[in-house]
Amino acid sequence: MKKRKGRSVAGSRFAYDGLERLIHERARLCLLTSLMTHSKGLSFGELKEFCGLTDGNLNRHLQVLEDAKLVTVAKKHDHNRPQTVCRITPLGRRRYLDYLEVLEQVIVDGSQACAESDSPLRADSPLRKAASP
Amino acid sequence: MKKRKGRSVAGSRFAYDGLERLIHERARLCLLTSLMTHSKGLSFGELKEFCGLTDGNLNRHLQVLEDAKLVTVAKKHDHNRPQTVCRITPLGRRRYLDYLEVLEQVIVDGSQACAESDSPLRADSPLRKAASP
Repeated sequence: MKKRKGRSVAGSRFAYDGLERLIHERARLCLLTSLMTHSKGLSFGELKEFCGLTDGNLNRHLQVLEDAKLVTVAKKHDHNRPQTVCRITPLGRRRYLDYLEVLEQVIVDGSQACAESDSPLRADSPLRKAASP
Repeated sequence: MKKRKGRSVAGSRFAYDGLERLIHERARLCLLTSLMTHSKGLSFGELKEFCGLTDGNLNRHLQVLEDAKLVTVAKKHDHNRPQTVCRITPLGRRRYLDYLEVLEQVIVDGSQACAESDSPLRADSPLRKAASP
């Protein structure tokens, strides 16, 4: 049997080991998703706005992601005004996508359960199809 | 504009407020997904095996979920042997499905980004479709 990410052993069917805390933490998941969708990078101010974070929280979580080499934080000058630009690294991108694959399995599992009763998923949800027998 | 779960305000596009910590914590997400897919309930031993948790961790997270009324934990006797049976409550089911809807949005957002480059999503992934333009 091929071992799938997020399923450690056959018995631990719902362990989802691939949901690593570094990425799963909500603020960091928001930050990485923002940066994934903006490949040219985002300024500190844009990230703060997109993720609804305070300066302190944004700084703290960016530091964690930078220490793990998942993002880069560069200071530069734009018309003599200092600006901080954050980007996701190739490593960050790979790790995020590995994580996303496990998340997908959670949704497929959860949706299969709710397909057996009334499903509150959006009518246009791509997961409705996955959840159908 | 209809306000969608997980998007607090137009600016906080990636805030995903609906990823409430109570459910998002990995061990509890594993527990709830296990219980969602087993509507008749699971014993303490089965949950421990499915989620790959220690006795201590399982007890701790079940207590959090029971306090929040998302699961019930009932002691009963099976052939004179005590058994603990855990079930998800109707409230737990609703909250889990609300959460799942926000998780779905994260995957759709993340997948749209990776559709612009090489996608590592499974070839049969229902999300490939969602990620395609």
